[in-house]
Amino acid sequence: MDKLYLEDFTVGQRFISEPHQIDADQIKAFAERFDPQPFHTDEVAAQTGFFHGLAASGWHTAAITMSLLVKSDMPIAGGLIGAGGEIIWPRPTRPGDVLQVESEILAVTPSRSRPERGTITVKSETRNQNGEVLQVLTSKMLVWRRP
Amino acid sequence: MDKLYLEDFTVGQRFISEPHQIDADQIKAFAERFDPQPFHTDEVAAQTGFFHGLAASGWHTAAITMSLLVKSDMPIAGGLIGAGGEIIWPRPTRPGDVLQVESEILAVTPSRSRPERGTITVKSETRNQNGEVLQVLTSKMLVWRRP
Repeated sequence: MDKLYLEDFTVGQRFISEPHQIDADQIKAFAERFDPQPFHTDEVAAQTGFFHGLAASGWHTAAITMSLLVKSDMPIAGGLIGAGGEIIWPRPTRPGDVLQVESEILAVTPSRSRPERGTITVKSETRNQNGEVLQVLTSKMLVWRRP
Repeated sequence: MDKLYLEDFTVGQRFISEPHQIDADQIKAFAERFDPQPFHTDEVAAQTGFFHGLAASGWHTAAITMSLLVKSDMPIAGGLIGAGGEIIWPRPTRPGDVLQVESEILAVTPSRSRPERGTITVKSETRNQNGEVLQVLTSKMLVWRRP
Protein backbone atom coordinates (compact mmCIF):
# COMPACT_ATOMS: atom_id res chain seq x y z
CA MET A 1 0.00 0.00 0.00
CA ASP A 2 1.15 3.53 -0.73
CA LYS A 3 2.55 5.55 2.12
CA LEU A 4 0.24 8.21 3.49
CA TYR A 5 1.00 11.93 3.65
CA LEU A 6 -0.93 14.71 5.39
CA GLU A 7 -2.91 15.35 2.19
CA ASP A 8 -4.20 11.76 2.28
CA PHE A 9 -5.99 12.14 5.61
CA THR A 10 -9.52 13.46 6.08
CA VAL A 11 -11.60 13.93 9.20
CA GLY A 12 -13.82 10.92 9.78
CA GLN A 13 -11.57 8.48 7.95
CA ARG A 14 -11.29 5.09 9.67
CA PHE A 15 -8.64 2.40 9.80
CA ILE A 16 -8.94 -1.09 11.26
CA SER A 17 -6.01 -3.15 12.47
CA GLU A 18 -5.34 -6.84 12.33
CA PRO A 19 -6.36 -8.83 15.42
CA HIS A 20 -4.00 -9.96 18.18
CA GLN A 21 -4.88 -12.61 20.75
CA ILE A 22 -3.42 -12.09 24.20
CA ASP A 23 -2.90 -14.95 26.66
CA ALA A 24 -1.93 -15.35 30.31
CA ASP A 25 1.73 -15.96 29.49
CA GLN A 26 2.01 -12.68 27.57
CA ILE A 27 0.20 -10.82 30.37
CA LYS A 28 2.47 -12.22 33.08
CA ALA A 29 5.69 -11.77 31.08
CA PHE A 30 4.99 -8.09 30.38
CA ALA A 31 3.86 -7.44 33.94
CA GLU A 32 6.83 -9.16 35.57
CA ARG A 33 9.05 -6.75 33.70
CA PHE A 34 7.05 -3.52 33.75
CA ASP A 35 4.09 -3.74 36.14
CA PRO A 36 4.83 -6.39 38.77
CA GLN A 37 1.60 -6.40 40.75
CA PRO A 38 -0.26 -9.59 41.76
CA PHE A 39 -3.38 -8.82 39.70
CA HIS A 40 -1.15 -8.81 36.58
CA THR A 41 1.30 -11.61 37.47
CA ASP A 42 -0.47 -14.27 39.55
CA GLU A 43 -3.73 -15.92 38.50
CA VAL A 44 -4.51 -17.19 42.01
CA ALA A 45 -3.85 -13.91 43.80
CA ALA A 46 -5.72 -12.08 41.03
CA GLN A 47 -8.93 -14.00 41.81
CA THR A 48 -9.38 -12.08 45.05
CA GLY A 49 -7.85 -8.85 43.72
CA PHE A 50 -9.36 -5.69 42.32
CA PHE A 51 -9.95 -7.11 38.84
CA HIS A 52 -11.43 -10.45 40.03
CA GLY A 53 -9.08 -12.42 37.81
CA LEU A 54 -5.90 -11.91 35.85
CA ALA A 55 -5.84 -8.65 33.89
CA ALA A 56 -3.20 -7.17 31.61
CA SER A 57 -1.34 -4.04 32.62
CA GLY A 58 -2.90 -1.06 30.89
CA TRP A 59 0.56 -0.33 29.49
CA HIS A 60 0.56 -3.78 27.93
CA THR A 61 -2.74 -3.01 26.21
CA ALA A 62 -1.18 0.26 25.07
CA ALA A 63 1.93 -1.50 23.72
CA ILE A 64 -0.14 -4.09 21.82
CA THR A 65 -2.26 -1.26 20.44
CA MET A 66 0.90 0.41 19.14
CA SER A 67 2.07 -2.83 17.53
CA LEU A 68 -1.30 -3.19 15.79
CA LEU A 69 -1.21 0.42 14.60
CA VAL A 70 2.30 -0.08 13.17
CA LYS A 71 1.17 -3.24 11.35
CA SER A 72 -2.21 -1.84 10.32
CA ASP A 73 -3.34 -0.26 7.10
CA MET A 74 -2.40 3.26 8.21
CA PRO A 75 1.12 3.37 6.72
CA ILE A 76 2.14 6.94 7.48
CA ALA A 77 5.12 8.01 5.36
CA GLY A 78 8.16 8.17 7.65
CA GLY A 79 6.53 6.07 10.35
CA LEU A 80 4.12 6.50 13.25
CA ILE A 81 5.56 9.23 15.47
CA GLY A 82 3.37 10.27 18.36
CA ALA A 83 3.88 13.39 20.43
CA GLY A 84 1.55 12.19 23.14
CA GLY A 85 -2.11 11.79 23.89
CA GLU A 86 -4.85 10.84 26.29
CA ILE A 87 -5.45 7.26 27.30
CA ILE A 88 -8.22 5.58 29.27
CA TRP A 89 -8.88 1.95 30.12
CA PRO A 90 -12.63 1.45 30.58
CA ARG A 91 -12.28 -2.27 31.33
CA PRO A 92 -9.48 -4.79 31.86
CA THR A 93 -7.84 -6.84 29.12
CA ARG A 94 -8.23 -10.55 29.92
CA PRO A 95 -6.36 -13.72 28.91
CA GLY A 96 -7.83 -14.97 25.63
CA ASP A 97 -9.07 -11.57 24.49
CA VAL A 98 -8.63 -10.87 20.79
CA LEU A 99 -7.63 -7.23 20.48
CA GLN A 100 -8.33 -5.13 17.44
CA VAL A 101 -7.88 -1.38 17.00
CA GLU A 102 -10.21 0.92 15.10
CA SER A 103 -8.84 4.38 14.51
CA GLU A 104 -10.74 7.48 13.43
CA ILE A 105 -9.15 10.69 12.21
CA LEU A 106 -10.48 13.54 14.37
CA ALA A 107 -8.41 16.41 12.98
CA VAL A 108 -5.86 17.16 10.26
CA THR A 109 -3.74 20.18 11.13
CA PRO A 110 -0.98 21.63 8.94
CA SER A 111 1.87 23.12 10.95
CA ARG A 112 1.94 26.93 11.01
CA SER A 113 5.68 27.16 11.45
CA ARG A 114 6.88 24.16 9.44
CA PRO A 115 5.40 23.92 5.95
CA GLU A 116 6.68 20.39 5.38
CA ARG A 117 4.67 18.80 8.15
CA GLY A 118 1.49 18.73 10.19
CA THR A 119 -0.31 16.63 12.77
CA ILE A 120 -3.28 14.33 12.74
CA THR A 121 -5.40 13.71 15.82
CA VAL A 122 -6.39 10.07 15.94
CA LYS A 123 -8.84 8.33 18.25
CA SER A 124 -7.92 4.65 18.49
CA GLU A 125 -10.32 2.30 20.23
CA THR A 126 -8.93 -1.08 21.23
CA ARG A 127 -11.74 -3.62 21.50
CA ASN A 128 -12.00 -7.30 22.36
CA GLN A 129 -13.80 -10.04 20.42
CA ASN A 130 -17.12 -8.98 21.99
CA GLY A 131 -16.75 -5.39 20.83
CA GLU A 132 -16.09 -4.21 24.38
CA VAL A 133 -13.78 -1.19 24.53
CA LEU A 134 -10.60 -1.92 26.51
CA GLN A 135 -8.73 1.27 25.74
CA VAL A 136 -9.34 4.61 24.08
CA LEU A 137 -6.23 6.45 22.97
CA THR A 138 -6.53 9.92 21.48
CA SER A 139 -3.12 10.82 20.13
CA LYS A 140 -1.43 13.43 18.02
CA MET A 141 0.86 12.10 15.36
CA LEU A 142 3.39 13.86 13.20
CA VAL A 143 2.67 13.52 9.47
CA TRP A 144 4.70 14.86 6.54
CA ARG A 145 3.21 16.77 3.65
CA ARG A 146 3.69 15.23 0.24
CA PRO A 147 7.09 16.38 -1.07
CA MET B 1 7.04 1.22 54.52
CA ASP B 2 3.39 1.48 55.49
CA LYS B 3 0.83 1.23 52.75
CA LEU B 4 -0.78 4.51 51.74
CA TYR B 5 -4.49 5.27 51.84
CA LEU B 6 -6.38 8.27 50.47
CA GLU B 7 -6.00 10.05 53.82
CA ASP B 8 -2.21 9.84 53.50
CA PHE B 9 -2.03 11.93 50.32
CA THR B 10 -1.89 15.71 50.18
CA VAL B 11 -1.67 18.09 47.24
CA GLY B 12 1.94 19.02 46.53
CA GLN B 13 3.39 15.83 48.02
CA ARG B 14 6.30 14.42 45.99
CA PHE B 15 7.70 10.97 45.49
CA ILE B 16 10.94 10.00 43.75
CA SER B 17 11.62 6.62 42.17
CA GLU B 18 14.76 4.59 41.96
CA PRO B 19 16.81 5.02 38.75
CA HIS B 20 16.76 2.65 35.78
CA GLN B 21 19.38 2.68 33.05
CA ILE B 22 18.14 1.83 29.57
CA ASP B 23 20.42 0.47 26.85
CA ALA B 24 20.20 -0.26 23.14
CA ASP B 25 19.37 -3.93 23.69
CA GLN B 26 16.35 -3.08 25.86
CA ILE B 27 15.20 -0.46 23.35
CA LYS B 28 15.43 -2.85 20.41
CA ALA B 29 13.87 -5.81 22.24
CA PHE B 30 10.81 -3.80 23.30
CA ALA B 31 10.44 -2.20 19.88
CA GLU B 32 10.76 -5.45 17.95
CA ARG B 33 7.78 -6.73 19.90
CA PHE B 34 5.59 -3.63 20.21
CA ASP B 35 6.82 -0.80 18.00
CA PRO B 36 8.81 -2.27 15.11
CA GLN B 37 9.97 0.87 13.33
CA PRO B 38 13.56 1.43 12.16
CA PHE B 39 14.22 4.42 14.44
CA HIS B 40 13.52 2.10 17.42
CA THR B 41 15.08 -1.16 16.17
CA ASP B 42 18.09 -0.39 13.97
CA GLU B 43 20.95 1.87 15.05
CA VAL B 44 22.21 2.40 11.51
CA ALA B 45 18.85 3.22 9.95
CA ALA B 46 18.06 5.42 12.97
CA GLN B 47 21.04 7.68 12.20
CA THR B 48 19.26 9.12 9.18
CA GLY B 49 15.78 8.87 10.69
CA PHE B 50 13.54 11.36 12.46
CA PHE B 51 15.26 11.04 15.83
CA HIS B 52 18.84 11.21 14.43
CA GLY B 53 19.87 8.09 16.33
CA LEU B 54 18.27 5.19 18.13
CA ALA B 55 15.37 6.23 20.37
CA ALA B 56 13.10 4.19 22.61
CA SER B 57 9.44 3.77 21.78
CA GLY B 58 7.40 6.21 23.85
CA TRP B 59 5.46 3.19 25.10
CA HIS B 60 8.73 1.72 26.35
CA THR B 61 9.42 4.90 28.32
CA ALA B 62 5.86 4.64 29.66
CA ALA B 63 6.34 0.99 30.65
CA ILE B 64 9.64 1.72 32.44
CA THR B 65 7.95 4.63 34.19
CA MET B 66 5.25 2.27 35.43
CA SER B 67 7.85 -0.19 36.69
CA LEU B 68 9.62 2.59 38.59
CA LEU B 69 6.33 3.81 40.09
CA VAL B 70 5.49 0.27 41.24
CA LYS B 71 8.92 -0.09 42.84
CA SER B 72 9.02 3.48 44.20
CA ASP B 73 8.23 4.81 47.61
CA MET B 74 4.56 5.45 46.78
CA PRO B 75 3.15 2.12 48.07
CA ILE B 76 -0.56 2.63 47.55
CA ALA B 77 -2.59 0.12 49.57
CA GLY B 78 -4.08 -2.40 47.13
CA GLY B 79 -1.66 -1.48 44.35
CA LEU B 80 -1.28 1.14 41.65
CA ILE B 81 -4.46 1.07 39.60
CA GLY B 82 -4.72 3.73 36.93
CA ALA B 83 -7.90 4.68 35.11
CA GLY B 84 -6.04 6.59 32.44
CA GLY B 85 -4.27 9.84 31.89
CA GLU B 86 -2.47 12.21 29.59
CA ILE B 87 1.00 11.47 28.30
CA ILE B 88 3.52 13.53 26.35
CA TRP B 89 7.05 12.79 25.23
CA PRO B 90 8.96 16.09 24.94
CA ARG B 91 12.20 14.40 23.86
CA PRO B 92 13.37 10.91 22.94
CA THR B 93 14.77 8.37 25.40
CA ARG B 94 18.28 7.35 24.30
CA PRO B 95 20.53 4.32 24.92
CA GLY B 96 22.44 4.90 28.16
CA ASP B 97 19.86 7.26 29.66
CA VAL B 98 19.27 6.79 33.37
CA LEU B 99 15.56 7.26 33.94
CA GLN B 100 14.07 8.45 37.20
CA VAL B 101 10.48 9.44 37.93
CA GLU B 102 9.40 12.29 40.16
CA SER B 103 5.71 12.33 40.97
CA GLU B 104 3.68 15.16 42.43
CA ILE B 105 0.17 14.86 43.82
CA LEU B 106 -2.04 17.38 42.00
CA ALA B 107 -5.41 16.46 43.52
CA VAL B 108 -6.95 14.18 46.13
CA THR B 109 -10.61 13.48 45.41
CA PRO B 110 -12.90 11.31 47.56
CA SER B 111 -15.52 9.46 45.52
CA ARG B 112 -19.04 10.87 45.83
CA SER B 113 -20.75 7.57 45.18
CA ARG B 114 -18.33 5.12 46.82
CA PRO B 115 -17.35 6.09 50.35
CA GLU B 116 -14.57 3.49 50.56
CA ARG B 117 -12.47 4.97 47.77
CA GLY B 118 -11.27 8.03 45.92
CA THR B 119 -8.81 9.09 43.27
CA ILE B 120 -5.53 10.93 43.26
CA THR B 121 -4.29 12.90 40.27
CA VAL B 122 -0.56 12.41 39.89
CA LYS B 123 1.87 14.19 37.59
CA SER B 124 4.87 11.94 36.97
CA GLU B 125 7.88 13.38 35.18
CA THR B 126 10.38 10.89 33.80
CA ARG B 127 13.79 12.52 33.48
CA ASN B 128 17.21 11.41 32.33
CA GLN B 129 20.53 11.82 34.12
CA ASN B 130 20.79 15.43 32.85
CA GLY B 131 17.42 16.38 34.29
CA GLU B 132 15.85 16.54 30.82
CA VAL B 133 12.18 15.60 30.78
CA LEU B 134 11.50 12.57 28.57
CA GLN B 135 7.87 12.02 29.51
CA VAL B 136 5.14 13.73 31.48
CA LEU B 137 2.30 11.48 32.57
CA THR B 138 -0.69 12.96 34.38
CA SER B 139 -2.79 10.08 35.59
CA LYS B 140 -5.73 9.36 37.82
CA MET B 141 -5.24 6.49 40.23
CA LEU B 142 -7.73 4.66 42.38
CA VAL B 143 -6.92 4.87 46.10
CA TRP B 144 -8.79 3.27 49.01
CA ARG B 145 -9.77 5.12 52.14
CA ARG B 146 -8.37 3.77 55.38
CA PRO B 147 -10.71 0.99 56.58
